[in-house]
Amino acid sequence: MTRALACLTTALIATTLSGQQPSLVSTYGSDASRIIAAAQSDSSAWRRLADLTDTFGNRIAGSTNLEQAIDWVLGEMKKDGFANVHGEQVSVPHWVRGAESAELVSPRRLRLHMLGLGNSVGTPPAGITAPVLVVTSFDDLQKHASEAKGKIVLYDVAFPQEGDPFFNYGNVVAYRVAGAIQAAKVGAVASLIRSVASGSMQSPHTGVMVYDSTTRKIPHAALSVEDAEMLHRMQDRGQKVVLTLKMQAHTLPQAHSRNVVADLVGREKPEEVVVLGGHIDSWDVGEGAMDDGGGAVAAWEAVKLLQRLGLHPRRTVRVVLWTTEEFGGVGGQAYAKDHASDLPKHVLGLESDNGTFDPRGFMYNGIPANLPFVTQLDSLLAGLGNFHSDTGFAETDVAPMGAHGVPLLGLKVDPSRYFFYHHTDADMMDKIDPRELARCVAAMAVAVYVAADMAEPLAHGQ
Amino acid sequence: MTRALACLTTALIATTLSGQQPSLVSTYGSDASRIIAAAQSDSSAWRRLADLTDTFGNRIAGSTNLEQAIDWVLGEMKKDGFANVHGEQVSVPHWVRGAESAELVSPRRLRLHMLGLGNSVGTPPAGITAPVLVVTSFDDLQKHASEAKGKIVLYDVAFPQEGDPFFNYGNVVAYRVAGAIQAAKVGAVASLIRSVASGSMQSPHTGVMVYDSTTRKIPHAALSVEDAEMLHRMQDRGQKVVLTLKMQAHTLPQAHSRNVVADLVGREKPEEVVVLGGHIDSWDVGEGAMDDGGGAVAAWEAVKLLQRLGLHPRRTVRVVLWTTEEFGGVGGQAYAKDHASDLPKHVLGLESDNGTFDPRGFMYNGIPANLPFVTQLDSLLAGLGNFHSDTGFAETDVAPMGAHGVPLLGLKVDPSRYFFYHHTDADMMDKIDPRELARCVAAMAVAVYVAADMAEPLAHGQ
Repeated sequence: MTRALACLTTALIATTLSGQQPSLVSTYGSDASRIIAAAQSDSSAWRRLADLTDTFGNRIAGSTNLEQAIDWVLGEMKKDGFANVHGEQVSVPHWVRGAESAELVSPRRLRLHMLGLGNSVGTPPAGITAPVLVVTSFDDLQKHASEAKGKIVLYDVAFPQEGDPFFNYGNVVAYRVAGAIQAAKVGAVASLIRSVASGSMQSPHTGVMVYDSTTRKIPHAALSVEDAEMLHRMQDRGQKVVLTLKMQAHTLPQAHSRNVVADLVGREKPEEVVVLGGHIDSWDVGEGAMDDGGGAVAAWEAVKLLQRLGLHPRRTVRVVLWTTEEFGGVGGQAYAKDHASDLPKHVLGLESDNGTFDPRGFMYNGIPANLPFVTQLDSLLAGLGNFHSDTGFAETDVAPMGAHGVPLLGLKVDPSRYFFYHHTDADMMDKIDPRELARCVAAMAVAVYVAADMAEPLAHGQ
Repeated sequence: MTRALACLTTALIATTLSGQQPSLVSTYGSDASRIIAAAQSDSSAWRRLADLTDTFGNRIAGSTNLEQAIDWVLGEMKKDGFANVHGEQVSVPHWVRGAESAELVSPRRLRLHMLGLGNSVGTPPAGITAPVLVVTSFDDLQKHASEAKGKIVLYDVAFPQEGDPFFNYGNVVAYRVAGAIQAAKVGAVASLIRSVASGSMQSPHTGVMVYDSTTRKIPHAALSVEDAEMLHRMQDRGQKVVLTLKMQAHTLPQAHSRNVVADLVGREKPEEVVVLGGHIDSWDVGEGAMDDGGGAVAAWEAVKLLQRLGLHPRRTVRVVLWTTEEFGGVGGQAYAKDHASDLPKHVLGLESDNGTFDPRGFMYNGIPANLPFVTQLDSLLAGLGNFHSDTGFAETDVAPMGAHGVPLLGLKVDPSRYFFYHHTDADMMDKIDPRELARCVAAMAVAVYVAADMAEPLAHGQ
């Protein structure tokens, strides 16, 4: 048992013994069972996600695809009969990949599998041709700092196969985010990472990177795991590794996008709001089915399911499809800012952004007073099997609400396949299992229904 | 227990009871243990395979890469001290892929993930733009035959996730091999398959296809699983699916290649020969590490290991790296033809061409009289764990020898990952586990050592 789970259990026992709250399990048990059964006998979420992703493709901030997808969602939500369906303007970064390539020049000519990283600058039109220095960590880069000048630094940092993939991601993604800064500091002319991936089929993984204000901006891209390892082996053999990197990547002026907002208005306390959602933007590869089309559609379908079942809670349930999560959580920040005066009446923020694989629990982020609610959700969702919540970071787009004291939940799912497909061309509908997606809909629907209907709202605080 | 295994066991019991043969297990047990231990403490096979594949890349029939790789192998084998190291000329098909693309035109523009199939004709330079007809089988094509004229037929045939992957491959690969013939017969202008794959990361799988002499030749290519499924969903929605296929594929005059042959000359009966090998050619994607660089190097290293351990058997052990297996087993046929007069003295033919994953047994193809040898190999290789031979098809390059009565073995390995990487860009060194490869070396070395040294040769016959 983890410390967090032990904490949840202790809290539940204390609450049960004190008898200070009516049991949510007894009050909402039959509604939860109806929701779970109805969700699992329905494949509409999968079909809607396929319609969205096949029709509009990937949806990067600033793209026509994204705005057309948002227009379509707004139209569909109106057809669904939701209230207050509207887009809330958000100014978003507009980075454009353009044509790009990485060609091995020595010891042999070979086109490599690469993806530029979001926010990277491009190269001159003729590209950058330079020897490669492969390093295995920032420490290793420092050890070889004197050799880095004029070179393309490649960070060959493996994604550990064991342990918590999200913890591993946090450790390894540092090279994607900050690798260009560190490489530029030792005189490199460009930098590359081994893709942040727990499996590979020559599939490069993109994602966001940053510069700082004091260091020269150099192009930064990801190679496939296979190609990164090959260059490393070549270096280990004493071969001179040279490549030509060409990237037309550039950043245009800020663009207009929108957070999608729609309500199921509360029957008694419409001004109190339970928010749930996912992000509607994606990277500019694949079709953004897993990240995060699935989360967005699961949230949307959860509300539609409540509506269809006639489960009309006391408080308002609001679905928000945030824009531009991938470029720094822009939509989530905008929502919290735009609704700053309403946040004291925001009862809960729930997001799904770890894929819509088999749901395994929630991550709760908030004050301990709400832990009994979370543990009772586990009981209400026991029918999904293997559903155990925990405490920790919820999700990027709800985090700014959390900073104002709003209790947060993030949907935890089976993590085993996420970093195969994350930010790649392979993030397509075949990775979404209709049954797993339906179970995510059920978990989200039960959580927001109970939070929106129970007698006392969840407690705010940090 | 399968029927084949039951058969092996019965044969072993009969032999043991009759006591007609000395036990190979008692005679060769300690040598087998030495071989297994030495192979497993040695990573030279993996390093050599990495040297081969990283240096020369993929090695399609007719390519400079293939011939340069063969030159290098011949040089290395001479350095290894093998006898009679030489190349045997083989005339091989010379198909060239050229530039190629498949672009979805309707319902939206999108570059798809495709690979032309080996032996396909190309398209006119402007490509072929036509509506797509998705079918799920040859029967389904016949049902929709009246709609196929002027269209691009896409066979969306899924690779079953359960059961024997090699059996499944046999069923599904029919669409790759013969799909263009059937599509042309109903008036299609081109044909596509869903890649023959047990998993996908937008990775198209190539492979050989054929035409017949009476049907018009139309271009034939593979789409990724993801893209094939997406087009199928679009058709199911009633959307008009149109794409532009461009392929510069063409076939040049026959080229020269070579089978690589090298001997460890037998100490008593040098004219009796045990052959083992893999094929040195690959498809023109990835680096052909799994298919079949690993098999070729495992065979080579098995002989080198015997030499290093001073295990010098009575008969000659010959390593053959066949050329151009991928275009119809050309090298294997040439070897059997070139050595037709020697085949009565060929004691055994062994090939590894299912990848060099964890070895699980041999497939024996020959007359029942040799079954006790096969079952005793299982005992000698029990140290590898989970090693159980069976009867069935051995491998493509040894099959022509088998047609002359030479007993055959194919190396069976863990099949679970083979059809992820088969004929894709992802067939790279990271897919080869050094420990698994070393165990394949051990299995092959023990088999050929015993076959080359035991008192009586294996029995010929069909």
